[in-house]
Amino acid sequence: MTTTKQEWQTLWVNVNIATMSDAGNSYGEIKAAALAVANGKIAWLGKQADLPDFDDNKTQVIDGQGQWLTPGLIDCHTHLIYGGNRANEFEMRLQGKSYQEIAEAGGGIVSTVKATREASKDQLLASALPRLTALHQQGVTTLEIKSGYGLDTETEIKMLEVAGTLAEKLPVTIKRTFLGAHALPVEYKDNPEAYVDLVCNEMMPLVAKRQLADTVDVFCENIGFNLSQTERVFASAQKHGLAIKVHAEQLSDLGGTELAAKYSAKSSDHVEFLSNQGIAAMKQADMTAVLLPGAFYFLRETQLPPITQLREQGVAMAIATDANPGSSPICSIQLMLNMACTLFRLTPAEALAGVTCHAAKALDLSDKKGILAVGYDADIAQWNITQPAELCYQFGVNPLTSLIKAGKKVL
Amino acid sequence: MTTTKQEWQTLWVNVNIATMSDAGNSYGEIKAAALAVANGKIAWLGKQADLPDFDDNKTQVIDGQGQWLTPGLIDCHTHLIYGGNRANEFEMRLQGKSYQEIAEAGGGIVSTVKATREASKDQLLASALPRLTALHQQGVTTLEIKSGYGLDTETEIKMLEVAGTLAEKLPVTIKRTFLGAHALPVEYKDNPEAYVDLVCNEMMPLVAKRQLADTVDVFCENIGFNLSQTERVFASAQKHGLAIKVHAEQLSDLGGTELAAKYSAKSSDHVEFLSNQGIAAMKQADMTAVLLPGAFYFLRETQLPPITQLREQGVAMAIATDANPGSSPICSIQLMLNMACTLFRLTPAEALAGVTCHAAKALDLSDKKGILAVGYDADIAQWNITQPAELCYQFGVNPLTSLIKAGKKVL
Ligand SMILES: [Zn+2]
Ligand SMILES: [Zn+2]
Repeated sequence: MTTTKQEWQTLWVNVNIATMSDAGNSYGEIKAAALAVANGKIAWLGKQADLPDFDDNKTQVIDGQGQWLTPGLIDCHTHLIYGGNRANEFEMRLQGKSYQEIAEAGGGIVSTVKATREASKDQLLASALPRLTALHQQGVTTLEIKSGYGLDTETEIKMLEVAGTLAEKLPVTIKRTFLGAHALPVEYKDNPEAYVDLVCNEMMPLVAKRQLADTVDVFCENIGFNLSQTERVFASAQKHGLAIKVHAEQLSDLGGTELAAKYSAKSSDHVEFLSNQGIAAMKQADMTAVLLPGAFYFLRETQLPPITQLREQGVAMAIATDANPGSSPICSIQLMLNMACTLFRLTPAEALAGVTCHAAKALDLSDKKGILAVGYDADIAQWNITQPAELCYQFGVNPLTSLIKAGKKVL
Repeated sequence: MTTTKQEWQTLWVNVNIATMSDAGNSYGEIKAAALAVANGKIAWLGKQADLPDFDDNKTQVIDGQGQWLTPGLIDCHTHLIYGGNRANEFEMRLQGKSYQEIAEAGGGIVSTVKATREASKDQLLASALPRLTALHQQGVTTLEIKSGYGLDTETEIKMLEVAGTLAEKLPVTIKRTFLGAHALPVEYKDNPEAYVDLVCNEMMPLVAKRQLADTVDVFCENIGFNLSQTERVFASAQKHGLAIKVHAEQLSDLGGTELAAKYSAKSSDHVEFLSNQGIAAMKQADMTAVLLPGAFYFLRETQLPPITQLREQGVAMAIATDANPGSSPICSIQLMLNMACTLFRLTPAEALAGVTCHAAKALDLSDKKGILAVGYDADIAQWNITQPAELCYQFGVNPLTSLIKAGKKVL
């Protein structure tokens, strides 16, 4: 009787693996492990002592030197594409200039919308690429990018097209989200319902028809869109077969999360002011809470998200950069790991789950990304660390030694 | 009559310069500028329109493409050399383990002292080098490194020797500080005065004789050394001709800063609890306040340093990483710029002064480093930014495009 030898493309031996298959309760550790890849998928993983026979003429064997493998990191909430930056406004505020003076100098989201509308696709691509590169070099293999600085049909489409082009520039998976309902453009300031009409009746059909995004997001907030406006956008998204998520409960408890839960949203993001009813609704709808410690830090927020209750109720918590020019001009997923622990008191295992399995869940990719398991995409980060908690504890020295995307070494 | 042509090694044209020669009140901007280097020093700078004749056969001309030049950055307070790390303790704390459990698992500075004593020089060098490299790649050309994890003569000396060797590995200037009085080693826990004797009578003479450090530091705090012990160390330092600085007023107002002022200290570092008398003493002694936002962040401190009063009194404020395994495991001077603004509300110009001219002042290097001016060391960072505030506003994308050390391009 002969047993067939495994035919793998690549086999890592002498590694430790944080599979992240335990929903953040642990790292799902396998020490003294091996991991094999075939056809861009994970073909085998386990204790090295249990390795089956493989054809070593066909398999490249890599000595991991006792380093750690984790899933490639996932940044599930970014606004990576925008024109200009807001350094000027940042400086004026710190110089004690009044809101009036800052507004007169063109501060706020208005300035980003103006710069984004004026920018060509090439300019938007050129400014976003270093940000994407920074995330990628920190271990990110999948990320989400939202529109939302156009607030007119042409520019919203332009942003989503640029997000598509970005995915051709680096070996990352990009999920696109249509966030036309991010803010009210000045030209509609006295007529928000008409802007919501534009979002639902003009932008949304185009986005859906041209498959420029698979998910729709709304900034549901006193300074954004109210519940009834938010619901109109959700209903339109549903009609067009697009998935739903929401920016909610960042500054107040408006109930956006509960509304989103009724529409089977994938995630509610920010959630500093989320109520117990909101948490219960998330639990029932199997939503992910996306925590954004960069914005919390940069805005000097003091209201913490209800971590303890989310944990107790078993609501999955993802962590993302929220990279954007206004409230989180921070392109560092590794810093978010540190901030999730330092500011939000997540355990390192929870924080790491937040940028792997739970981020995949927020992006509806749980069946192929976010954990290391047989059949899953071989998106893998290799780290020069002696224990996974180091990824959260230290910051500044990038411990990434190798990055694998769909089975291929890309860094 | 003939005019002699300037003979320069390198000339940057088409640049903007933040000279930082205005003590943080402004960037000391020169736009549309040029800067020339000869013999490792700055030989000329000013408006490009005012460039004197130069010998273009002998001068390499670099087009700065409208980017910005600043002084090479200076990190004036680090504990970069240590054994092990404290990720385990970080994780246990976040898992809700008790202090007892953490202590039993060998947590706290004791664990770092143990690991540092056990480490060979090569091991200490190998673990510190990536940290130094990370700082260097962010624009640091000068930094301070303290001893203080040996707490015995042999290991304190070993740490300072490793700091000397580090300076041969990368093109950075390293200033060494002897911090034997960092903590009480367990073997002296019932006899602090005897440990101070050891510091003053055994370690200090060796450090001075072998020129292993030019400055002495003390952790003056309830959990460190009291005023009389601190003064004994200062007096010994003075006797040996070593400069003085102090870790003070971090957790309480013990008066360490005022004591240090009496001994003409260069700086008092941390200073969250500094009193008005302390500020007045600093002003009179021309001391620099070294602010450490990384430790403030990591320890979740809520007591802010008295920024407004320091500013009003004209006390120079430096910013440093305090890179260390316990309270600031963060090797990022660029993140400190962002945190100085975000957490301490410094203006970007003040923050940038904190890592240039004021950091040079804290290290007693004001006559040669920290500003861009004729005769100063040509330690220069070139940045792909459109205004200096971007160095403080955004984080994650490293805008450093070139680094010059003593006139030579090193990155
Ligand atoms: Zn957002
Ligand atoms: Zn320190």
